[in-house]
Amino acid sequence: MQPAERLALLRQAMAAQGLGGFIVPRADEHLGEYVPPAAERLAWLTGFTGSAGLAIVLADRAAVFTDGRYTLQLAAQVDAALYEACHIIEQPPPAWLKEHAAPGALIGYDPWLISQDGLKRFSDAGLEMVQAEPNPVDLAWTGRPAAPSAPAVPHPLAYAGRFSAEKRSDVAAALRAENQDVAVITDPASIAWLLNLRGADVDYTPFALGFVLLRANGTATLFMEPEKLPPETLDWLGPDVTTTGRDMLPGALAQLSGQRVRVDAAGSPVWFAQTLAKAGATVLDGGDPCQLPKACKNRTEQAGARAAHVRDGAAVCRFLHWLDGADRASLTEVTAAQRLLRFRQAASEFRGESFPAISGAGEHGAVIHYRVTAETDRPIRANEAYLIDSGAQYPDGTTDITRTVWTGPDAPPDELRDRFTRVLKGHIALATTLFPQGVAGPHLDAFARRALWQAGLDYDHGTGHGVGSYLSVHEGPASLSRAGRMVPLAPGMILSDEPGYYLPGAYGIRLENLLMVRTADRPAAKKPFLEFETLTLAPFDRRLIDPALLTAEERRWIDGYHARVLAEVAPALDEPARDWLVAACAPLR
Amino acid sequence: MQPAERLALLRQAMAAQGLGGFIVPRADEHLGEYVPPAAERLAWLTGFTGSAGLAIVLADRAAVFTDGRYTLQLAAQVDAALYEACHIIEQPPPAWLKEHAAPGALIGYDPWLISQDGLKRFSDAGLEMVQAEPNPVDLAWTGRPAAPSAPAVPHPLAYAGRFSAEKRSDVAAALRAENQDVAVITDPASIAWLLNLRGADVDYTPFALGFVLLRANGTATLFMEPEKLPPETLDWLGPDVTTTGRDMLPGALAQLSGQRVRVDAAGSPVWFAQTLAKAGATVLDGGDPCQLPKACKNRTEQAGARAAHVRDGAAVCRFLHWLDGADRASLTEVTAAQRLLRFRQAASEFRGESFPAISGAGEHGAVIHYRVTAETDRPIRANEAYLIDSGAQYPDGTTDITRTVWTGPDAPPDELRDRFTRVLKGHIALATTLFPQGVAGPHLDAFARRALWQAGLDYDHGTGHGVGSYLSVHEGPASLSRAGRMVPLAPGMILSDEPGYYLPGAYGIRLENLLMVRTADRPAAKKPFLEFETLTLAPFDRRLIDPALLTAEERRWIDGYHARVLAEVAPALDEPARDWLVAACAPLR
Repeated sequence: MQPAERLALLRQAMAAQGLGGFIVPRADEHLGEYVPPAAERLAWLTGFTGSAGLAIVLADRAAVFTDGRYTLQLAAQVDAALYEACHIIEQPPPAWLKEHAAPGALIGYDPWLISQDGLKRFSDAGLEMVQAEPNPVDLAWTGRPAAPSAPAVPHPLAYAGRFSAEKRSDVAAALRAENQDVAVITDPASIAWLLNLRGADVDYTPFALGFVLLRANGTATLFMEPEKLPPETLDWLGPDVTTTGRDMLPGALAQLSGQRVRVDAAGSPVWFAQTLAKAGATVLDGGDPCQLPKACKNRTEQAGARAAHVRDGAAVCRFLHWLDGADRASLTEVTAAQRLLRFRQAASEFRGESFPAISGAGEHGAVIHYRVTAETDRPIRANEAYLIDSGAQYPDGTTDITRTVWTGPDAPPDELRDRFTRVLKGHIALATTLFPQGVAGPHLDAFARRALWQAGLDYDHGTGHGVGSYLSVHEGPASLSRAGRMVPLAPGMILSDEPGYYLPGAYGIRLENLLMVRTADRPAAKKPFLEFETLTLAPFDRRLIDPALLTAEERRWIDGYHARVLAEVAPALDEPARDWLVAACAPLR
Repeated sequence: MQPAERLALLRQAMAAQGLGGFIVPRADEHLGEYVPPAAERLAWLTGFTGSAGLAIVLADRAAVFTDGRYTLQLAAQVDAALYEACHIIEQPPPAWLKEHAAPGALIGYDPWLISQDGLKRFSDAGLEMVQAEPNPVDLAWTGRPAAPSAPAVPHPLAYAGRFSAEKRSDVAAALRAENQDVAVITDPASIAWLLNLRGADVDYTPFALGFVLLRANGTATLFMEPEKLPPETLDWLGPDVTTTGRDMLPGALAQLSGQRVRVDAAGSPVWFAQTLAKAGATVLDGGDPCQLPKACKNRTEQAGARAAHVRDGAAVCRFLHWLDGADRASLTEVTAAQRLLRFRQAASEFRGESFPAISGAGEHGAVIHYRVTAETDRPIRANEAYLIDSGAQYPDGTTDITRTVWTGPDAPPDELRDRFTRVLKGHIALATTLFPQGVAGPHLDAFARRALWQAGLDYDHGTGHGVGSYLSVHEGPASLSRAGRMVPLAPGMILSDEPGYYLPGAYGIRLENLLMVRTADRPAAKKPFLEFETLTLAPFDRRLIDPALLTAEERRWIDGYHARVLAEVAPALDEPARDWLVAACAPLR
């Protein structure tokens, strides 16, 4: 079926429901980053496969919205005769609708695919928003893939560190403290954490799709298809967690009449708040109560993260060694990424990549969210910068590392070394800072930029994101980014430190380690101080470092870090790779 | 009349109005920092004279709330038999009321003395808030001072830089862009800026109390008592600014039925929104539309700020020279502050202090908002740290400077030098940073703390506040503080850079210059970069600087700054002071 035919079918279904417009977000019923094929409505309708976007269809015109990362991709994938291409920040969808929809037209939305806050932005613009049930795209979509049905499996205590009953008890206490009877939990990562389960329903993030009602007495109901719950998982969940199919949700919410129910207005489908309100429950926006405790890894998870990073560091070091001597004839962005994957796969604990690797040589390195495909693949040539941003899922931890290397054999240009060294200075400034309790990531972001700022340079992305424990590589609530939420950093949080510099058409630099927050040992301090422990273990390319730009402290940090990489990773390597690592970790001159 | 009697009278007046409780904020009808004596209801009732606080009176109990700055003062001034002393953050007034007021009791408030947002915090707690008119304190208060009646005078173009008609035209355009018909302006500083007027109704800030309705066509009505408006002021205002008494406000608002009226929900008395809603206007919270343009000083104001700082720097340098040789027998915190005032008064342009000077020797320096009085005064002794934070109002600019000096004659202890040097490093890090457009003050605050943080030290106040142009020394919307608003810094903004370190019972250090934001000259940058120009001109005490802790760049900055102080200030000094300044500004060794 061609996109024009799909659009025509959707318009027929809309008309039959009396809708003057319909919005098609790139979202599933959990509003997460990775969605199963069955939820790829935007891609089915328009052809656009970016991870963030929204289509609006009116009777006589239509548009697809995305952000700056995907502008080019949008233009390449979507038929301009059918859809106007819009920048989601510069032309906000509610404003576009206000301009183009007929006055008073009913604009349909699927209440499972938009949050309460998201819907409010449309209503606040004065649009007449109505629930479309069933979703008219689903009526038009023939051959829609089935919902995923991978089993949910126990996440053993050796990795999880705490029993689900303990976690539920803690979160339940938080609900009682806020005078709430029940919490609706729709983020599969929160459910995975709360119930010590993992799964395989979407790519890259090992969770199982489902919903939970957690009661203030610590008991929970898990809404998940019975075929996804094998007997050992039911045993693992224990008697205080009831399981039932997702089709039982409406009935379960209807029984909450008169209760005070916590929802996440920003992160959960508005269907929950609407259904609860209809049922006579008091709906309270309190956010996802698992998000913060999940972010603060316990001691077992912290130890797991360290072990996962030694293992991952060995794979990355083997890869960097291989890359240095690789046969240029067959070396491309794709073959390099595949090779890194193979090095990781050699570990029995490897469960998969934590996101699609970004493997960009030369000018491709400047495309911040570059995703190499057979079409975009290009050789990694001599004498250029090569950027690789990748990560892995292990049962004891999730990794995410970026290195930028010079392919040689000549020395790199001075400008590139200058930029690389400034990025590295920023990375170090953030990694080495102490800070008192109460400080949030947005307060620290500038440390990673200052060395670039002083030269009139910057990078157009946040400095760091939270990372889960064998869960999502992008995890809230904390970040190290200016636009992030003002959540005080707390011990056990894992965050990326990834400043960069990008010269479009020429090269990209990004240097990323994961950091874990810990209490600093400062007995003289009158209040608790925190600091970062660097988890990631792989050398920074010494060929790209200009020691003249470094302070004595910065040199000491690099030499100390490299000595640690050598000590922790070398024992896992065989001789040629170990020799390479010794040289790569030699002190700066 | 004793406080007990006053409280009894208030309770009688409350009972007559059917009120179960009444809140008495420290506020006037403009909700500003400095209020006239006629608005000191909290002080009259309770005896507490701090600049921030609130009393709540119930039939059988009462409490006064203030913040950490005033805890000791509250205990000293208020009779504990009458009022419970509460910390306003730890025991929020709405929570206290919820706990202690009889269920369903009517809690009165004066709609002129609380903002819409402030009232909402009480209503959201489930309290039954009702307007009390007239204010029952005013019924009980015999001998209440008259409202101030200083004349409003023209602020000449040579200082203001732009005609009021231009400013009104710009703000009116902003109103039209947001589809607003009228804006209510209640901040006297905004009115002073908009109409190019100054006054003398309160201490320290040279504005005249009044209200303005600004229409989207650029015309305005100024509500101010006729006796405060001499003929030359009326001429200066011109035909597009109508003036009328403040008693005409209710009638004027009643005529706005059907219009879209912008109010400042956080900064204006809730009376306006309530009266407008009753009149059938559409009330829109858009903040004070003058606040941002007022903060971005124009070229004339920028030049004025520079001139004011050369003048003020000369007075401060004369003072520091005098202090170095002062007769210890008569040297106290009070006599020193008076002496600094006299040096400033010598300039014909001096109009007054911009706030009460903080003059603290030894342990008094550690009291962040120390205010020296005859009771607290103490000698400034040999071999101790002395902190003086003061500022002046000149028609071309407002100043605010803090210096910390060592009285000698012995060398200061190593710890003090270490702390002083770390504070100075923080001051320099902030003063020298470049940053791209879009960065807000809260993103930069950490630069000023890092050198302290690395030693497990910190200071419990913001790093900097906005400063007006011959207006308030504390001005919004931007700041350099973590808790400040996310307002991007913009050229012409003046902000203080004042990190500190305080060791209770021993000493305090604070190093404050005013900085002005300007466009950085970085032709290579792909986006506009900004930087700070240091306005304040007075040496930092070289005796307290440990050069071993400084980077080469930091030394260069200090030597360069001192050279500039010498070049700009020395010509205004006579010989002994000039010789002193030459030595004080000598390069570090």
